[in-house]
Amino acid sequence: MLVVMQEGASETQIENVIDRLVEMGFTVHRSTGVRHTVLGGVGPKDDFDPAELEVLEGVKECHRIVSAYKLASRHFRPGGTVINIRGVDIGGPTLVCMAGPCSIESAQQIEKAADIVASAGARVIRGGAFKPRSSPYSFQGLGEQGLELLRKAADRRELLVISEVMDQTQIPLLAQYSDILQVGARNMQNFNLLRELGKIRKPVLLKRGIAATIEELLLSAEYMMSGGNYEIMLCERGIRTFETSTRNTMDIAAMPVLKRLTHLPVIADPSHGTGRREYVVPMARASVAAGADGLLVEVHHDPDHAWSDGAQTLRPDQFAEMMQQVRAIAGAIGRAA
Amino acid sequence: MLVVMQEGASETQIENVIDRLVEMGFTVHRSTGVRHTVLGGVGPKDDFDPAELEVLEGVKECHRIVSAYKLASRHFRPGGTVINIRGVDIGGPTLVCMAGPCSIESAQQIEKAADIVASAGARVIRGGAFKPRSSPYSFQGLGEQGLELLRKAADRRELLVISEVMDQTQIPLLAQYSDILQVGARNMQNFNLLRELGKIRKPVLLKRGIAATIEELLLSAEYMMSGGNYEIMLCERGIRTFETSTRNTMDIAAMPVLKRLTHLPVIADPSHGTGRREYVVPMARASVAAGADGLLVEVHHDPDHAWSDGAQTLRPDQFAEMMQQVRAIAGAIGRAA
Amino acid sequence: MLVVMQEGASETQIENVIDRLVEMGFTVHRSTGVRHTVLGGVGPKDDFDPAELEVLEGVKECHRIVSAYKLASRHFRPGGTVINIRGVDIGGPTLVCMAGPCSIESAQQIEKAADIVASAGARVIRGGAFKPRSSPYSFQGLGEQGLELLRKAADRRELLVISEVMDQTQIPLLAQYSDILQVGARNMQNFNLLRELGKIRKPVLLKRGIAATIEELLLSAEYMMSGGNYEIMLCERGIRTFETSTRNTMDIAAMPVLKRLTHLPVIADPSHGTGRREYVVPMARASVAAGADGLLVEVHHDPDHAWSDGAQTLRPDQFAEMMQQVRAIAGAIGRAA
Amino acid sequence: MLVVMQEGASETQIENVIDRLVEMGFTVHRSTGVRHTVLGGVGPKDDFDPAELEVLEGVKECHRIVSAYKLASRHFRPGGTVINIRGVDIGGPTLVCMAGPCSIESAQQIEKAADIVASAGARVIRGGAFKPRSSPYSFQGLGEQGLELLRKAADRRELLVISEVMDQTQIPLLAQYSDILQVGARNMQNFNLLRELGKIRKPVLLKRGIAATIEELLLSAEYMMSGGNYEIMLCERGIRTFETSTRNTMDIAAMPVLKRLTHLPVIADPSHGTGRREYVVPMARASVAAGADGLLVEVHHDPDHAWSDGAQTLRPDQFAEMMQQVRAIAGAIGRAA
Repeated sequence: MLVVMQEGASETQIENVIDRLVEMGFTVHRSTGVRHTVLGGVGPKDDFDPAELEVLEGVKECHRIVSAYKLASRHFRPGGTVINIRGVDIGGPTLVCMAGPCSIESAQQIEKAADIVASAGARVIRGGAFKPRSSPYSFQGLGEQGLELLRKAADRRELLVISEVMDQTQIPLLAQYSDILQVGARNMQNFNLLRELGKIRKPVLLKRGIAATIEELLLSAEYMMSGGNYEIMLCERGIRTFETSTRNTMDIAAMPVLKRLTHLPVIADPSHGTGRREYVVPMARASVAAGADGLLVEVHHDPDHAWSDGAQTLRPDQFAEMMQQVRAIAGAIGRAA
Repeated sequence: MLVVMQEGASETQIENVIDRLVEMGFTVHRSTGVRHTVLGGVGPKDDFDPAELEVLEGVKECHRIVSAYKLASRHFRPGGTVINIRGVDIGGPTLVCMAGPCSIESAQQIEKAADIVASAGARVIRGGAFKPRSSPYSFQGLGEQGLELLRKAADRRELLVISEVMDQTQIPLLAQYSDILQVGARNMQNFNLLRELGKIRKPVLLKRGIAATIEELLLSAEYMMSGGNYEIMLCERGIRTFETSTRNTMDIAAMPVLKRLTHLPVIADPSHGTGRREYVVPMARASVAAGADGLLVEVHHDPDHAWSDGAQTLRPDQFAEMMQQVRAIAGAIGRAA
Repeated sequence: MLVVMQEGASETQIENVIDRLVEMGFTVHRSTGVRHTVLGGVGPKDDFDPAELEVLEGVKECHRIVSAYKLASRHFRPGGTVINIRGVDIGGPTLVCMAGPCSIESAQQIEKAADIVASAGARVIRGGAFKPRSSPYSFQGLGEQGLELLRKAADRRELLVISEVMDQTQIPLLAQYSDILQVGARNMQNFNLLRELGKIRKPVLLKRGIAATIEELLLSAEYMMSGGNYEIMLCERGIRTFETSTRNTMDIAAMPVLKRLTHLPVIADPSHGTGRREYVVPMARASVAAGADGLLVEVHHDPDHAWSDGAQTLRPDQFAEMMQQVRAIAGAIGRAA
Repeated sequence: MLVVMQEGASETQIENVIDRLVEMGFTVHRSTGVRHTVLGGVGPKDDFDPAELEVLEGVKECHRIVSAYKLASRHFRPGGTVINIRGVDIGGPTLVCMAGPCSIESAQQIEKAADIVASAGARVIRGGAFKPRSSPYSFQGLGEQGLELLRKAADRRELLVISEVMDQTQIPLLAQYSDILQVGARNMQNFNLLRELGKIRKPVLLKRGIAATIEELLLSAEYMMSGGNYEIMLCERGIRTFETSTRNTMDIAAMPVLKRLTHLPVIADPSHGTGRREYVVPMARASVAAGADGLLVEVHHDPDHAWSDGAQTLRPDQFAEMMQQVRAIAGAIGRAA
């Protein structure tokens, strides 16, 4: 904790800040500069809100120097984390592709999806069983029945399954059918859900919220890791900006930034990142070129008639083309695929 | 639904779009302009994603002309909605202030808070019983015991109670102790929660998400209203932008924009809107001057020692000053307070 | 300058950073914490880019502790700056309103505007003489002839004149006709223009860029002040965010934030801040309630036929109503108007 | 122009809007729907502000259906534009790299830079001669002398030259020494400068402003093209968002979006796009993978001692590595390099 006092802060103001820091458990080191007094505090609390000191009189600004995340930091495991799920490595040299429809619609549809996914060489199938929608009259998902269909379709082709958990009550059900539990962007800071996910021993893919900073994404990962679940993947899926030609602005720089800050595997979701089918393939290529360990994309045998997210869902031929192109790029940067 | 075809779109492309519209249940009206063909579609579906048509070949852009919200629109109830809760009108000519601590900490603390709130003339006390925090080791709230303390403190002074509901499982508990159920910014699009809140008959205060547009806020209100709960208040509490001198950027224009678009009462939360105590009073004044029907602010008898949100919490003297100032402004614009 | 080293930074890395700091003229103070080494540097350079140190190996982050602005800081002149222009005080207890059309169109139009402005009690008339527009075929402004018309209309009613200077070559012309030179949002970081404006002795109103932070606005003011021109007003006119119901998002909190950080007068422009006539009056009220020293608004005798910016321009009756309301609010917060 | 009337708009309101449209030169087609009346206007004006109609009573919203840009649209030249400058094709199958220091500092420095650029196989050297800086006491650039040094260094190695023009008065000077004139992000909407650049016959690289939409970038290109200069390249260099781990958020999706909307070549600038040396190489790779026709990057023989932009400037070894990697990626997606 570094507290920079304002120019001309009075001795009383400085001492008042020191008293507050001591009261909060910090050991304080004072350093008087030409224009500013700086107070360094070493202490037990890491999740401290610097604004609490900044509102004290005479304080100019306050910086937390210890990162609020530790288990998630690259320093904790410099070599990087590889999550092995029944023979599939995520975070290792091989690029991992996860693909499938937005929603599980029927046995026939999910079998077709599994064919598309497996035949193009992806190793993980996705599909949503719970679809709380903006209209209460819209399709809300097949629930457990959908998960059963997804699991069967995956098992027939030795695919792994990833599916989204909407709240903590769904964890047991999802854990039964799915190899990876996905936390959606809107739930990135649902701490009740994160706490329970920290207690299980299933890999979790955590999506970045549309208004979340990279640091906040890492804090949410830390929250689960502090509960003991170390198998966390982080997923960039676009942030909200003023640009409207794509649904979100995909922050491709999140790939190298996360690779530098954390040891956790990084996945890119160009379907939600763009919201438009025609941009998914180039953004998948860009994500891999920037260093993503894997991709999460939506594909459907007939996306124009998909029950949800059709506009951002690839056709089978587009998906096959994407797989071929991202493999070529992975190879070009010395990565297997 | 208006679909604008690209300049030079082929007849085949145009007919393909018409077929899709018809297949979706729209009656189509074609209008051929000098440079663009425009297809107008009248149909049963209002929650349609325009991007689904925009990905079709030859389509330039697609506009939904019917608002996705109806019950929440000003047109539905041009005179505006006044929510009457045991004698307190919200949305009427009188400004309503809701205030109290971020968290309920103890009987003593909440009694002191209730004194501060009541003696300054506010009619509603706030206080959080569930505080899922960024650190799993932090204070997590007093739960039901806290709600009991809050209720008692309120009843002794004839105050109404507002408290936050974190997920749908908490609705019965909150409905028992609280007059108004608050939905936090992170839950603005938690459709499972919204669906259940639509079924009860308790007023709800819905906070705008930090990355939510005003239209999305109205869609979430509509979601509850379509379930039958018409007593919804909307709350502006700041959006995320590039500016960092305040924690969020309070969108004061949301006040007149919402007043124009909807009949629902509009409340402003300058505590979360700024994150800094010294800016709460001027932003409370600005909110009222811009047309807010009420305020939601944090106050504590000793904010430097509050268990949460201290930096944005007013001291009792600041709160009393705020109440006096917003009353004067309400009067200046012809409003009671 | 505070440089925080990464946890586990090597002694060689630390010494390399110290060498760089010394080479750059800093006196270095080293402080070894439990987990991080912190290097404090006191030196001659204030406009240093912290990123230059952050890219060195082993560095976690770098904070500049001395503000990059000094002359503009509140500390430099705690009592605040009042700019007196021929009897009109800007920044003093009295609210100052500047109003007029976007463009000077004709003698008749500007005379009508001056009548509207003066009769409602505003003291400054605005009008643009140069209008570089998005289409090269659009009206480009009347140039010097327009400035003559504006000056005459102002003089007949003892109004001051404010008009925009588009680049440094126009300064002599504008300085001849105008009492206040306005720098538009797009020019906020046109350092060639700012440098020349620092050399003259005419008040300048500096508009915030749509993507500029408050700190960057203050740095641009500092740039002019370092040239010797201390009569600078700052103007909030909206920033770009994801919200589209208004053209920009007016950052009303900029009023109290600027009042705290700087001694310079603060003006609000709700016309550009909202882009929509119906929101100008409530946002003018909010600006004054939040502490603005003055307003800059667009008014025209027939805005639906104005040659530019019609949608955000008030009608005469709306303007008169606005003046009456902002005066009432100024009075309510203890300010003359 | 499509004007959607509010539900329940009166016949008088509708007729008033029709009158306004007719007065503005539009031919109006009225279409009465179940809930909304829609007015279609075909007319001569394309640079019309829809807000001017939206403020009329009874209007719900207004959409411009004809793009405000024509010459810049993909439809105008479906095959794409290739700009040939003395044997170097920009926009063709071969990736083009432009590189060099932020500022021209000395003959020795620019000769070293030219060696680095040429030996790695780039075809264009960049270097700034005018550096208006945030501090008036900082290095302001070598001016014409710098341009001479840059030209000589380029000619010795058969490199093309790109350098920034700061305002219209500098055009003749820059046109004399430089093959490509660069317009910086802050000048993207400097219409005086754009107008003059439209009159010359030299290629221009137009950078996107940090708060500019893709549509606004295209409108600025259109502005120059309407003057007769068709050799325009567009450059993505990052936009401002809430994320702070990089200086800007590079909008990599701008590559495929621009490729779809326009025929003009698209260049990516990962140096300004990230602001941090360690992220430049992965973002250069991502840009090429997403479809950029070229790159613009900063490189210096000793970036830690560069006079400007050191933190985002590559070392020679990093630049050589980048060139090798982007070539491999270009090859992987079927492009020469």
